[in-house]
Amino acid sequence: MEKVIYFDNSATSWPKPEKVLEEIKYFLEEIGGSPGRSGHRMSVAASRLIEEVREAVGEVFNYSDTSRIIFTKNITEALNICIFSLLRTGDHVVTSSTEHNSVMRPLRFLESNGSISLSVVNCNSDGTLYPEDVSKVIRKNTRMVMLTHASNVVGTILPIKEIASITMENNIPFVIDCAQTAGALPINIDLGKYKNCVLTFTGHKGLMGLTGTGGMCIGGDINLSPIIFGGTGSGSDGDIQPDFLPDKLESGTMNITGLAGLKAGVEFLLSKGISQVRSHERKLVDRFIKKASQIKGVKIYGTKDANRQAGLISFNIKNLSPSEVGLILDRKYSIMCRVGLHCNPNAHKTIGTFPEGTLRFSFSYFNTVEQIDYSISALEEILKIG
Amino acid sequence: MEKVIYFDNSATSWPKPEKVLEEIKYFLEEIGGSPGRSGHRMSVAASRLIEEVREAVGEVFNYSDTSRIIFTKNITEALNICIFSLLRTGDHVVTSSTEHNSVMRPLRFLESNGSISLSVVNCNSDGTLYPEDVSKVIRKNTRMVMLTHASNVVGTILPIKEIASITMENNIPFVIDCAQTAGALPINIDLGKYKNCVLTFTGHKGLMGLTGTGGMCIGGDINLSPIIFGGTGSGSDGDIQPDFLPDKLESGTMNITGLAGLKAGVEFLLSKGISQVRSHERKLVDRFIKKASQIKGVKIYGTKDANRQAGLISFNIKNLSPSEVGLILDRKYSIMCRVGLHCNPNAHKTIGTFPEGTLRFSFSYFNTVEQIDYSISALEEILKIG
Repeated sequence: MEKVIYFDNSATSWPKPEKVLEEIKYFLEEIGGSPGRSGHRMSVAASRLIEEVREAVGEVFNYSDTSRIIFTKNITEALNICIFSLLRTGDHVVTSSTEHNSVMRPLRFLESNGSISLSVVNCNSDGTLYPEDVSKVIRKNTRMVMLTHASNVVGTILPIKEIASITMENNIPFVIDCAQTAGALPINIDLGKYKNCVLTFTGHKGLMGLTGTGGMCIGGDINLSPIIFGGTGSGSDGDIQPDFLPDKLESGTMNITGLAGLKAGVEFLLSKGISQVRSHERKLVDRFIKKASQIKGVKIYGTKDANRQAGLISFNIKNLSPSEVGLILDRKYSIMCRVGLHCNPNAHKTIGTFPEGTLRFSFSYFNTVEQIDYSISALEEILKIG
Repeated sequence: MEKVIYFDNSATSWPKPEKVLEEIKYFLEEIGGSPGRSGHRMSVAASRLIEEVREAVGEVFNYSDTSRIIFTKNITEALNICIFSLLRTGDHVVTSSTEHNSVMRPLRFLESNGSISLSVVNCNSDGTLYPEDVSKVIRKNTRMVMLTHASNVVGTILPIKEIASITMENNIPFVIDCAQTAGALPINIDLGKYKNCVLTFTGHKGLMGLTGTGGMCIGGDINLSPIIFGGTGSGSDGDIQPDFLPDKLESGTMNITGLAGLKAGVEFLLSKGISQVRSHERKLVDRFIKKASQIKGVKIYGTKDANRQAGLISFNIKNLSPSEVGLILDRKYSIMCRVGLHCNPNAHKTIGTFPEGTLRFSFSYFNTVEQIDYSISALEEILKIG
């Protein structure tokens, strides 16, 4: 590919570590079988691979109970399993005003058909959520708190540890959307202690694997039931869904090729160390904030404090629409970023950028300080011309 | 890999055409973006790729309305969407005694919680289903007929065209499980005519693509609603699921890497021609049936007529359990096949092989006459020793 600067890692990370393609190639050429479906060596090797992926992901989340780590097609499926499995008519759910449509759309669906009631706790205009605001809206019938770990629009990190404590005290399941943070930030929720928590993740962003992979680590007190039923390679003498994990939530043939890639991505990540990755991305965000803040005509959203941000930043350019600027960045500077609403209208209402949206730069381990500086020059040029 | 004979293509096809890996490599290195999520060139190229996959799959099913071809993580998800979306409390469903657990488990779940009633039409002991037996059980409240195109256990092809007519006359949705036939048999259901039909498919068997891909072609009279809600890259100014196809049924980031592989698989298939592939596989089944029938101690199940079978065959060896024979085939002859119940207890009850199951040989375009002959010699040797 022509040399590009890829600042759209919150949509999907790119490039992937080289080993990702190697692992896929190895799987396709040397393993090839369907896991858990047959007894021959190629199927057995595929089953072993799946277990290795579970173990690798378990290491990311410090969770050794790999039977409670399940894989889905994306994080959206994992969040939907939690929602449709845990909620019953009459339940109350707490979420925030900075949630992605993967959280809001299923919840709004249940709210609109009268099944549940919903409290959407307001974050302030930099995306900050105060734990006490969550405490305040908890009711007797609150059956779930569902929050992102960090907003995909503005990057602000939410106080999930405090809310894990609040929900544990109140005996309420707490489902955490780690789409923007798994692999990119240390996630300090010990599921051994916070058994009421579920950590959902996607495989193709911070974990550096492929699209078509995601899943969740399920705390010991959470009992999820399937929303998709089918063959599991287990209990094949009956046409009733098996009742044990991980099988009951993994119907149909799994994305074993994708999981092979995920294994390579996670192993790369672990070899670098998540805190190293975090430190690098924080440095990039910090540099961007410091430099962009000095440009007249650039408006940065969020906390403007790299320590309180995931590796992404939303901003706008005076008098220009985000999509105009995005087009110029692509065409003239080969900088790839996302513009608009990022599947999250509520976050934009929260930070005051609805309906035009923002420009979002989102970084990975592979971005560099030089790229940040180049993008700053680009923005300066655009402002001069614009 | 050490040279093996792979006869487990009904679980997942192997090897894949060489272009599959090439297409994945091209996607990862040269495209990389998330489809529909951003406006930059890498995302636009990913969106274009998805449309190309839809068009390629449309060619397989002779269906030009690509907005009604949707992708899921596997065929199990597609079948579940049909079941949970179309059925309401009090509905009656017709299925057969040769269905996979991807059909039976979701239906049994709804039956067991009192939502639906279920008629399971008996196939005879060679797996044949008579259309008139389906007609007989249709009631006023029959809301769905769901049948496999060909049994994954015994290979017998079901008369889906006749049943498409019966269901159309009765204005009943007919969902067809093409797990074993998509790409391997011409599927003569014209969705332009049979608008009450849904053709579900998997990407990693006859279509020669990767696990983690599947989907369905939805006839024009069928209105499906999502079972998973979330970001679609469309209608991002609202937190309500969009109501148009394909977006409403494709929440969350799609398995674009897998779909890139599927495109290559389908293009390979189309370049060979599905009827050529069918003809080759039929020849293999025919040769196996003819030769194995002459071995005393081999019992073949099914119609024993290659014209009435998909490219797979179930059999047993006198006085030996399927798993014993499977182990010897793997260890001593490097023949990979599936043994046991194949996620389908009902089919085994139908053909009289429950609970011990069968040995199943399932073929692809890449299998050869020489491999069939070698496997026949292997079975003869095993019988001599056994």
